Amino acid sequence: MGKIDNASNERKTNRLEAFSDAVLAIAITLPVVELQSPTVKAGGNLAAAYAALWPEYVSYALSCIVIGLYWVHSHFSGKIFKKTNHGFNLLTMLFLALVSITPFPTRPFIEHLSDTANNRVAATVYSALLAAPAMVWFVRWQYAISQELLDPHLAASYLRRLTLKYAFTAVAAAAAPVICWFVDWRLGIGLTAITILRYLMPPMTPQFKPGEEPADELQEADDE
Amino acid sequence: MGKIDNASNERKTNRLEAFSDAVLAIAITLPVVELQSPTVKAGGNLAAAYAALWPEYVSYALSCIVIGLYWVHSHFSGKIFKKTNHGFNLLTMLFLALVSITPFPTRPFIEHLSDTANNRVAATVYSALLAAPAMVWFVRWQYAISQELLDPHLAASYLRRLTLKYAFTAVAAAAAPVICWFVDWRLGIGLTAITILRYLMPPMTPQFKPGEEPADELQEADDE
Amino acid sequence: MGKIDNASNERKTNRLEAFSDAVLAIAITLPVVELQSPTVKAGGNLAAAYAALWPEYVSYALSCIVIGLYWVHSHFSGKIFKKTNHGFNLLTMLFLALVSITPFPTRPFIEHLSDTANNRVAATVYSALLAAPAMVWFVRWQYAISQELLDPHLAASYLRRLTLKYAFTAVAAAAAPVICWFVDWRLGIGLTAITILRYLMPPMTPQFKPGEEPADELQEADDE
Amino acid sequence: MGKIDNASNERKTNRLEAFSDAVLAIAITLPVVELQSPTVKAGGNLAAAYAALWPEYVSYALSCIVIGLYWVHSHFSGKIFKKTNHGFNLLTMLFLALVSITPFPTRPFIEHLSDTANNRVAATVYSALLAAPAMVWFVRWQYAISQELLDPHLAASYLRRLTLKYAFTAVAAAAAPVICWFVDWRLGIGLTAITILRYLMPPMTPQFKPGEEPADELQEADDE
Repeated sequence: MGKIDNASNERKTNRLEAFSDAVLAIAITLPVVELQSPTVKAGGNLAAAYAALWPEYVSYALSCIVIGLYWVHSHFSGKIFKKTNHGFNLLTMLFLALVSITPFPTRPFIEHLSDTANNRVAATVYSALLAAPAMVWFVRWQYAISQELLDPHLAASYLRRLTLKYAFTAVAAAAAPVICWFVDWRLGIGLTAITILRYLMPPMTPQFKPGEEPADELQEADDE
Repeated sequence: MGKIDNASNERKTNRLEAFSDAVLAIAITLPVVELQSPTVKAGGNLAAAYAALWPEYVSYALSCIVIGLYWVHSHFSGKIFKKTNHGFNLLTMLFLALVSITPFPTRPFIEHLSDTANNRVAATVYSALLAAPAMVWFVRWQYAISQELLDPHLAASYLRRLTLKYAFTAVAAAAAPVICWFVDWRLGIGLTAITILRYLMPPMTPQFKPGEEPADELQEADDE
Repeated sequence: MGKIDNASNERKTNRLEAFSDAVLAIAITLPVVELQSPTVKAGGNLAAAYAALWPEYVSYALSCIVIGLYWVHSHFSGKIFKKTNHGFNLLTMLFLALVSITPFPTRPFIEHLSDTANNRVAATVYSALLAAPAMVWFVRWQYAISQELLDPHLAASYLRRLTLKYAFTAVAAAAAPVICWFVDWRLGIGLTAITILRYLMPPMTPQFKPGEEPADELQEADDE
Repeated sequence: MGKIDNASNERKTNRLEAFSDAVLAIAITLPVVELQSPTVKAGGNLAAAYAALWPEYVSYALSCIVIGLYWVHSHFSGKIFKKTNHGFNLLTMLFLALVSITPFPTRPFIEHLSDTANNRVAATVYSALLAAPAMVWFVRWQYAISQELLDPHLAASYLRRLTLKYAFTAVAAAAAPVICWFVDWRLGIGLTAITILRYLMPPMTPQFKPGEEPADELQEADDE
């Protein structure tokens, strides 16, 4: 099939960013649909009905945290991308499809927390589905570097450190379901939690090749 | 861990605005899904079936008012922001997650209005969930000021007046569920209603430091 | 309360357009959720099950037509707006909330087409809910003219013709449910259909004051 | 009715692109709502319950592939459009409405795969609904060429090749349900699959008239 000319389909990243944002915005909002109204029989107790729904609330909170952190970090990474191409678009579709289903295994995990017959399964599935987008993120990142989609002014050492960070995340996230299944599900979930919550920390300051710093700190790679 | 360098993750606000808008657009539209079609048995009366669904309509209207006013006001506030950073992004995620669930307690509140055993609970939960985003809004505002994310040309007196306004809203909204529970739920809901409906009034005209007014009244802080 | 200074909250229309687009995009897509999968018992007939769902398909098509035409026309009208303000934002929220619920009465209308006991009610409710956004559109247009939110270069005669067109639409749409109820529901629905389908025609070419035509035909009022 | 002046309603494509993106973003995310949580009775097996839901997962994956590829390709085609008009907007609405319902026949197709009484029907409906947007895409493309909405600098030979490609897709997609019904449903679905998966390949490099190449490869037709 010969060499695929990826330059043919390069575009600025603004529209891909907008599409990703829209998908993440929907994915973070859709779990609201899963919030069932409390049902109270005649003479029943609404407070008890509200309290009984606690797995819904925890699931909603967990879904928001995961998808929210993905958005925050992809918001940051938009800053250091110069352009996108066909392969990167496809990988982004895959990434988004995987992030969007992270709420699906959340509720079963919460509901089976104290069900000793099933909590190992529930935890393994949950951590596996949380690992999937982290692994695609890393693949996509490697692809972006190999295709030179990033801001060419960034320092090589800075890119190496980001690569290391994403690799560590992908490996830890992928190890979590294995640990859930073969060792202890609490340990595996703990690893997943640490992996995700690390992204509460601000991302690393972009560093540039000497003499290639942007004049204005708010200027972005895909600005003209 | 040392000083967190927030400058490292500053970006113009346009993409955060777009993401917030998308989440609010979805949150304001999703309650439509909760509108169940009227069900009429053979020989039944459709008009009566439509009428019986009135709690749906009121819930839909209330949800639109709350989320619509939040959008209108966050549309205004976008005008006076210069940039965003990691912490502000996280607080915005929290704010959006809380606004998105405001429709959840609305229907139970409407359905239990005349259920004397439960209307105090329903009103307390409803006003508490309406208070939550108002309180986060205030925290986020204080954070933005401390991190100097706002347009630096704005007059200090103007910012002080906005701070006062948001503080008042947060305190009043937080007091409402307390009043619902300990005093009278009608009083608490009344306070919540006043707190929200005040935002039907146009926001305060931005005022600038002498000699630093923008040349064009439509120019915005994150333009170029 | 004194004069409300609307200039204080004027902004370019781009973000309001984006928000409206997002709401309309969601509203036009959500009816997909109402499409129930055909259910076939063991040994049953899938073709018959698909065919039995025809009211779903017609409802989906009608919802797409109504919301799609509203989008197409609001896309056009974005071209001739210069700016927005607080009151216009509020009216836009109301307009969007009303467009978003137009799918709600569509299914009952289709399902009761041949139910002689209820088709008059179904048609009246349907045409009334289709009339609501058309009426708000007209009010919003009048407000925009009174607040001088439109491109100041447009010819007064052009604005007058648009006003006439929107007034006619609002009056005809408002008359339709009255005719449905008091005369004949087929006649009322026919009037509603004509009112909506007129917007399949392209909008009127913008005309400018002599010597104030834009240099570039694709330039828009809210471009710098 | 005289000549319709389409120039009257031409606008840059940015807002139409944004609207299309939003609809596709919602359409690709909504199938998540169809993912039912696994239900486990007391003492039941969660792993078995998860496994029993495999048609859900396959349907979700297929929906994401179809809509994702449509987005990727419409992202590319945005690069070569100069402007839009009323007719193109209407055809885009039709296209979007048809893409949005492609998830609807997916689940019945998967669920009836081994139901010999119904799999021919299920496959025919599925391939027909996948053919519909492909056919509208072709019609829309022909319309865009006839209305000169494309970048005028593109080489005629390049446009001819794209026309051929879209024509081939439309014809093959339209043939698939016919083959499903009259020949063999496996063959028809195979043709549909090939038709869609071809779009995993990068789109053809835009070629320009001699001397009219854009100075900057990332510049786009609707940039100023």
